[in-house]
Amino acid sequence: MAYRLKETGFAKRIIGVDNDPQNLSKAKELGWIDDAMLLEDAIAQTELIIIAIPVDATLKLLPALMEKIGNQVVMDVGSTKKMICDAVAKSAHRKRFVATHPMWGTEKSGPEAVVKDAFKTRVAVICDKENSDADAVALVERLYTTIGMRLVYMDAASHDVHAAYVSHISHVASYALSLTVLEKEKEEDAIFELASGGFESTVRLAKSNPDMWVPIFMQNKDNVLDVLNEHISQLRKFKSCLEKENYEYLTELIQNANKIKRILK
Amino acid sequence: MAYRLKETGFAKRIIGVDNDPQNLSKAKELGWIDDAMLLEDAIAQTELIIIAIPVDATLKLLPALMEKIGNQVVMDVGSTKKMICDAVAKSAHRKRFVATHPMWGTEKSGPEAVVKDAFKTRVAVICDKENSDADAVALVERLYTTIGMRLVYMDAASHDVHAAYVSHISHVASYALSLTVLEKEKEEDAIFELASGGFESTVRLAKSNPDMWVPIFMQNKDNVLDVLNEHISQLRKFKSCLEKENYEYLTELIQNANKIKRILK
Repeated sequence: MAYRLKETGFAKRIIGVDNDPQNLSKAKELGWIDDAMLLEDAIAQTELIIIAIPVDATLKLLPALMEKIGNQVVMDVGSTKKMICDAVAKSAHRKRFVATHPMWGTEKSGPEAVVKDAFKTRVAVICDKENSDADAVALVERLYTTIGMRLVYMDAASHDVHAAYVSHISHVASYALSLTVLEKEKEEDAIFELASGGFESTVRLAKSNPDMWVPIFMQNKDNVLDVLNEHISQLRKFKSCLEKENYEYLTELIQNANKIKRILK
Repeated sequence: MAYRLKETGFAKRIIGVDNDPQNLSKAKELGWIDDAMLLEDAIAQTELIIIAIPVDATLKLLPALMEKIGNQVVMDVGSTKKMICDAVAKSAHRKRFVATHPMWGTEKSGPEAVVKDAFKTRVAVICDKENSDADAVALVERLYTTIGMRLVYMDAASHDVHAAYVSHISHVASYALSLTVLEKEKEEDAIFELASGGFESTVRLAKSNPDMWVPIFMQNKDNVLDVLNEHISQLRKFKSCLEKENYEYLTELIQNANKIKRILK
């Protein structure tokens, strides 16, 4: 995000705040940030505070931070929205906060995980916009459109349902696929020589960090469980087709699954 | 394959044979083939016959074809190997056949699905090589190394086990994920606006053609069922962690899934 805000000229000066000084040194060396500071020192010097940390850490940090700000705008970029919005619902400065989720990311983390053209053409969700000041929302909208994102608006609870379907379940499926295959690898060393692009594609998300993802699953537990139950029941249909050698129904299932082409080019 | 064999100069002349004359016209127009013919006419004019059709069609075509050849080499490129090898085990010309599986493909089909650098750096499996003439194997080895593939040798039954783990299960998982999300889309139109790169990556294989994939699942039913059962049981572990709010074990599962990084860069 810092890299794209610099690159597009949206930000004149970026102050980095991080628990890990090595990340800050690296980010400064790479030019993604201009200065590194403690949070308390940074707050006074900035117009816009972007919270980009695991969602459990956001939940701890954000309510306290909201007490320390004046007229600055605060936004978060976390993958869950309901619990985060609830946590600041009573804050005196609630209207300076904008709850967002840019739907872009990779399985990597740290300053060296920077990706050229990051965020471009993807959707940024802004939640519960009526709870934020118009100028705060406008600033955040300008940020996202500057880095090439399209804007979508919804309430925090709807966001969490949608995110469970289009993002969180993909991670669960990919983690489980990785475990399935690693289980086999114990017996057979050669297996990964054969790994093709299809396998790499479905298992890519399994490289994602638990520090980021466990809190997401915790905060979106009910929705993720709903989708996971549906997913397991879909897999059971494939299992039953194979067991019963019902290849007509198997063909039908696959034809239905192919309909995803209508939606994802 | 035709495109890469032309591009690398491996083949001087390529004769296309296809059930669909439109595919042949398009392939000729694009320059992937020099001539289009009926199979009977093509056989007499070629040194190497490459069978690249769904595995159920291979099973029907191959035994009859093996009766019609002289000293030509026949190879197939199907995703299953055991049933195909069994089908020609008694052929008089068995030794002119080489059973192979280049571990590369996309979810697309037809002459316009051609991909630059296709096959490069991936593994080609050659099965039961001791059942083929040395000169036939050498020709096929030269073909695969010319298009940039690495060679791996194994028996047909082992191939099918490995393929179930590193390819077939990824397709089942992706089909099921597509169905899971499409099920939800019935209720909510907006959902796909949010689809991120992670979702696209896990669901890409769900665009794959049932004409190709149902026969693969049929021919590799037992192995696919084994892996699918394992996969469902891994998903149940995630479900149980969420239901019981056992986030320590969830972290452990994800840390174990992350070990896929050791294998796939």
